[in-house]
Amino acid sequence: MGAPLVATIEQLCVNTIRGLSIDAVQRANSGHPGLPLGAAPVAFVLWTRHLRHNPSNPKWANRDRFVLSAGHGYMLLYSLLFLTGYELTLDDLKGFRQWGSKTPGHPENILTPGVEMATGPLGQGFASAVGMAIAERYLSSNINRPGFEIVDHHTYVLCSDGDLMEGVTQEAASLAGHLKLGKLVVLYDDNHITIDGATDLSFSDHTRERFQALGWHVQEADGEDMESVDRAIAIAKKATAEPSLIICRTTIGFGSPNFAGKSKSHGAALGVEEVKLTKRALGMPEQEFYVPEQALDFFRQAEVTGQELEDNWSRLVEAFRATHPESTAWLDPDGSIETSHFPEFNDPVATRVASAKTLNAIAKQVPTLIGGAADLAESVGTMIEDSPYFQPNTPTGRNIAFGVREHAMMAAVNGITLHAGCRAFGGTFLIFSDYCRPALRLAALMEIPSIFLFSHDSIGLGEDGPTHQPIEHLMALRAIPNLNVMRPADAYETAACWKIAMEARKNPCALILTRQALPLLTPAEIEVHQATRGAYVLAEASVSSRYPEERSISAGIADLVIVATGSEVSVAMAAGSLLEKEGIAARVVSMPSWFLFERQPKDYRESIFPKNIPVVSVEAGATLGWARYAQAHVGIDHFGASAPGPAVMREFGFTPENVATVSRELLKR
Amino acid sequence: MGAPLVATIEQLCVNTIRGLSIDAVQRANSGHPGLPLGAAPVAFVLWTRHLRHNPSNPKWANRDRFVLSAGHGYMLLYSLLFLTGYELTLDDLKGFRQWGSKTPGHPENILTPGVEMATGPLGQGFASAVGMAIAERYLSSNINRPGFEIVDHHTYVLCSDGDLMEGVTQEAASLAGHLKLGKLVVLYDDNHITIDGATDLSFSDHTRERFQALGWHVQEADGEDMESVDRAIAIAKKATAEPSLIICRTTIGFGSPNFAGKSKSHGAALGVEEVKLTKRALGMPEQEFYVPEQALDFFRQAEVTGQELEDNWSRLVEAFRATHPESTAWLDPDGSIETSHFPEFNDPVATRVASAKTLNAIAKQVPTLIGGAADLAESVGTMIEDSPYFQPNTPTGRNIAFGVREHAMMAAVNGITLHAGCRAFGGTFLIFSDYCRPALRLAALMEIPSIFLFSHDSIGLGEDGPTHQPIEHLMALRAIPNLNVMRPADAYETAACWKIAMEARKNPCALILTRQALPLLTPAEIEVHQATRGAYVLAEASVSSRYPEERSISAGIADLVIVATGSEVSVAMAAGSLLEKEGIAARVVSMPSWFLFERQPKDYRESIFPKNIPVVSVEAGATLGWARYAQAHVGIDHFGASAPGPAVMREFGFTPENVATVSRELLKR
Repeated sequence: MGAPLVATIEQLCVNTIRGLSIDAVQRANSGHPGLPLGAAPVAFVLWTRHLRHNPSNPKWANRDRFVLSAGHGYMLLYSLLFLTGYELTLDDLKGFRQWGSKTPGHPENILTPGVEMATGPLGQGFASAVGMAIAERYLSSNINRPGFEIVDHHTYVLCSDGDLMEGVTQEAASLAGHLKLGKLVVLYDDNHITIDGATDLSFSDHTRERFQALGWHVQEADGEDMESVDRAIAIAKKATAEPSLIICRTTIGFGSPNFAGKSKSHGAALGVEEVKLTKRALGMPEQEFYVPEQALDFFRQAEVTGQELEDNWSRLVEAFRATHPESTAWLDPDGSIETSHFPEFNDPVATRVASAKTLNAIAKQVPTLIGGAADLAESVGTMIEDSPYFQPNTPTGRNIAFGVREHAMMAAVNGITLHAGCRAFGGTFLIFSDYCRPALRLAALMEIPSIFLFSHDSIGLGEDGPTHQPIEHLMALRAIPNLNVMRPADAYETAACWKIAMEARKNPCALILTRQALPLLTPAEIEVHQATRGAYVLAEASVSSRYPEERSISAGIADLVIVATGSEVSVAMAAGSLLEKEGIAARVVSMPSWFLFERQPKDYRESIFPKNIPVVSVEAGATLGWARYAQAHVGIDHFGASAPGPAVMREFGFTPENVATVSRELLKR
Repeated sequence: MGAPLVATIEQLCVNTIRGLSIDAVQRANSGHPGLPLGAAPVAFVLWTRHLRHNPSNPKWANRDRFVLSAGHGYMLLYSLLFLTGYELTLDDLKGFRQWGSKTPGHPENILTPGVEMATGPLGQGFASAVGMAIAERYLSSNINRPGFEIVDHHTYVLCSDGDLMEGVTQEAASLAGHLKLGKLVVLYDDNHITIDGATDLSFSDHTRERFQALGWHVQEADGEDMESVDRAIAIAKKATAEPSLIICRTTIGFGSPNFAGKSKSHGAALGVEEVKLTKRALGMPEQEFYVPEQALDFFRQAEVTGQELEDNWSRLVEAFRATHPESTAWLDPDGSIETSHFPEFNDPVATRVASAKTLNAIAKQVPTLIGGAADLAESVGTMIEDSPYFQPNTPTGRNIAFGVREHAMMAAVNGITLHAGCRAFGGTFLIFSDYCRPALRLAALMEIPSIFLFSHDSIGLGEDGPTHQPIEHLMALRAIPNLNVMRPADAYETAACWKIAMEARKNPCALILTRQALPLLTPAEIEVHQATRGAYVLAEASVSSRYPEERSISAGIADLVIVATGSEVSVAMAAGSLLEKEGIAARVVSMPSWFLFERQPKDYRESIFPKNIPVVSVEAGATLGWARYAQAHVGIDHFGASAPGPAVMREFGFTPENVATVSRELLKR
């Protein structure tokens, strides 16, 4: 490689990015200089010649999306955001990776204006970008009218070889190829280096052929040659029949005399000396955080251009609203959910079935709600009636056939949700929540209201056996911060949980649903359903015959509380009746959501679980965690067994009789 | 398709499999008839013309491995096991999916002789088979000598389109292609149907080109034409430079007049009438569980052939032992671990570093120990010194570069472990345990001693920020039944945990390791290290000045117990000292393993956490679960932050002062 000097303003701009990136990493003495040095020209060309965005309004609805799937390239992104005029200062860059800064160690949408999503865990960005492109197609197909291209933008991704090796990327790429998402353009920073050394240590894919086999349009470009990158992006934008991959050959740590092309430049500060040498090689002055005025001026044109783009678009939207009043439901979706048209239930029904019916009632009100399943549409209950599958030839369809790709599905659901303008859900069996946990976690971290449906939620599913019977999953999901895990006890509680999920704004929700039918136990009035409080008294105890004086509690007098979730609430109810016959006053609490309950005032929480009243928990899952509320447990801390559901439940102790026995033993302690 | 009659004995055999499969599903009124009907000829040809196995000894070391990655084809496998003479009776088939049967709803190695591994969650079988092929190459390269092909077998997989869609399969296929695992042969049951309908609903991959791009040898065969399948397998066995994929075109539900070629035949019993019609179409009598004697005789030849194969091999091994006494270490690996050569530590050191040193001490003793990392070899500490990478041209190398493929890595570790003759480990950051949970769970379910290393185990990793800081992961792993999660407090406890992991037989172990250095706190004598008890008193309290009479406990008198794990043990120790100065007698317990502790006798457990002595838990992770042992917690139930590790730990309360404050508050309650 020849040393790139700053003969042109564009070279100066590129090297300004490089300088800022290595300075920030050096000052933090922590970070990843390699990717920004190598991919700066690629990102520069994209951001200044193609990306339609408005730095003054990072939330402009019709902006092009840029997803840095290779999250370890954050300094590239932070530099671009600062330079093009987002709400990020040079001081923010100087505070990189320090307590309280807006420039965390990997990008976070909740901290930094202009960051579309949190990335770092590889593959997530790629897969969520597929969701964004789905949202763009769905919305544009439904909203746009001749002369009114209201929704019309590209989704760009910058990814690394690490992204390409992750399974979730394959799933997402395969789905994108199937869906022919032609406005998705992925730039692959092909620097031939991984953390452990050259990529050929572990990676021999023929990437061009691989992506072509998935139905992608593939090009190669010289990542150091801006015109080469520019041409490829221009062609990719014209290749609208397929998603595009542009393999950009780059050099990791470009410019660093000693570390360029080496894995050493990937994930550690270059060192003071090498920073100096690098700047010299790049033809830049030694000055820390150097931003030449002409470079800044060049970048900041984005503010003017961006505002113009948005202004023109806003005018178009005004005209559209005036001529197309029916568009309101799409442009200004009403967040609240009207429950008067929710389904009625009369007979025992599986909560997955109740979920499907409620989903359809909501879908009628909310045309922007889309989703699907990982090849389990019927089993989980995800089909929106009267709508086709979302396919290349039916882009207004609301049912997404995600294929057997749980991980990409949930990441894409995040992408659709992040896109905004849509709400999205994905569904599979609870056992397969393990296949998509990284996406669930990221939704929680990004504070977005993705909706995750998980049916077949316990050993109660029966015959499919231990490989398909969740044990630890429910509790493992509850452990994820900011994820509202809801396990409703019957059809009406399910409907209430759906309403909660639809009205969530800053957290994802997981609905945990049964395969088997459950009796109706909870009130039919969804608007005032106590599921919103997370836990509530479903059956109050009769006055205790044993401790009538000693144990007076706010909401009644009980000897014992039995708390249960989902399918075990009916078992708890029956156990309560058994105990009452023996003169033991048992209160039964349904606890669909720990998340909601733990956000209630202390008074309320103590009114449900009064001090000094013993509690038994009943849940067909790991008992780990239940000690927070209960002193004795009916649960399962080992793998399940293959047999009809009722037999498995009985054999493992989920019977009223066993719950009563455990309760009696607790009272004797 | 023409109706296949039973003109030949082979057709009769194939249709016997089909009949047994649909009968068993029909009797259980639950299951998956589609795959066995469609893929019976493929499996039949493999099992009777190619597979080298001995039904009388399912554990014969040099058997070909057969992995049914499409676990929903269990009836195909159970039928073959019964028919060829494994320890599985016709009555077992009749008990399919019933309580206590040896024929569970998906295959389980722990229940059914001849089942190599548990499958059902798609992709796991494929990826673990890659591990088996790795083990075969590693062992054969190290053990075999001219004239002594001691280890020499194929690994066969039967997979479905669902397997091919899962990301873990891509990761594994890419790795297998890179490693040129020529003795891996995958038969793809290409039936064009998924649960939700035709595969073209969501799957448009060009599978041939995709796998060729990954370095595979690809063929196509007519799955209904036994000669076509036979030829392809023969060619695949000769194509030793690359792993082989054989795309077998089949018809799901073959023979069923109304359901063949339809998704309806996939996952539900055909119905009594359709079973009759299917048998008629197949030219078979109506009789339930019909096994014609000539078919059984044909299948049972496998017993004779198999015994001969094993006998010949045994003689070869005898001769090999006699002429190659040095082979003993390979053929009869000694399970116990000698700790006299374990490293000594004098200074504070990260437990990931202590792990790396201990691993190397063990590797010197145990030549059959292999493993690696998902592109984080140095960071996690997985390199075995003095050994090259395991590559096509260095197949005796012990360091496997798994690439950025966490899921396939851990599934392959399972495969290597299942293969036997090897012990295997895989390593990545704890945050990425989410990327491989299905493999961790399956190891636990299969009761195999895989070793999983997870470093960078808390917010203490610092700058990389919330996307990389585990919060819920530790507890979410503890929730998996039969997984021994160990989080050592210092270098010596790390060494002790490694010894425990190496001596485990029926459960996998996860070692949770720090990025940051930790002081030495625990005894250096590994042989008698109390880590084996899961939790133990590290610092005994001085005699309580507050309750000297009231609270007498077996192992001392304390006002308070502070229990901590990993990096927080030193914080707990310092907090204990602070409290002692105030006259509060605090015992400090190190609790590296809940799994081991919960298997101790009650007396021991109560000696550690005496009744009525309050307990504070200190762990830089989710508090969910700790209520089992403690009444107050220093933990973190929200996402972390990007800043230097010590700052993050301090800001979130992991300081001796804060632990002392929480302790005082608990004592006041």
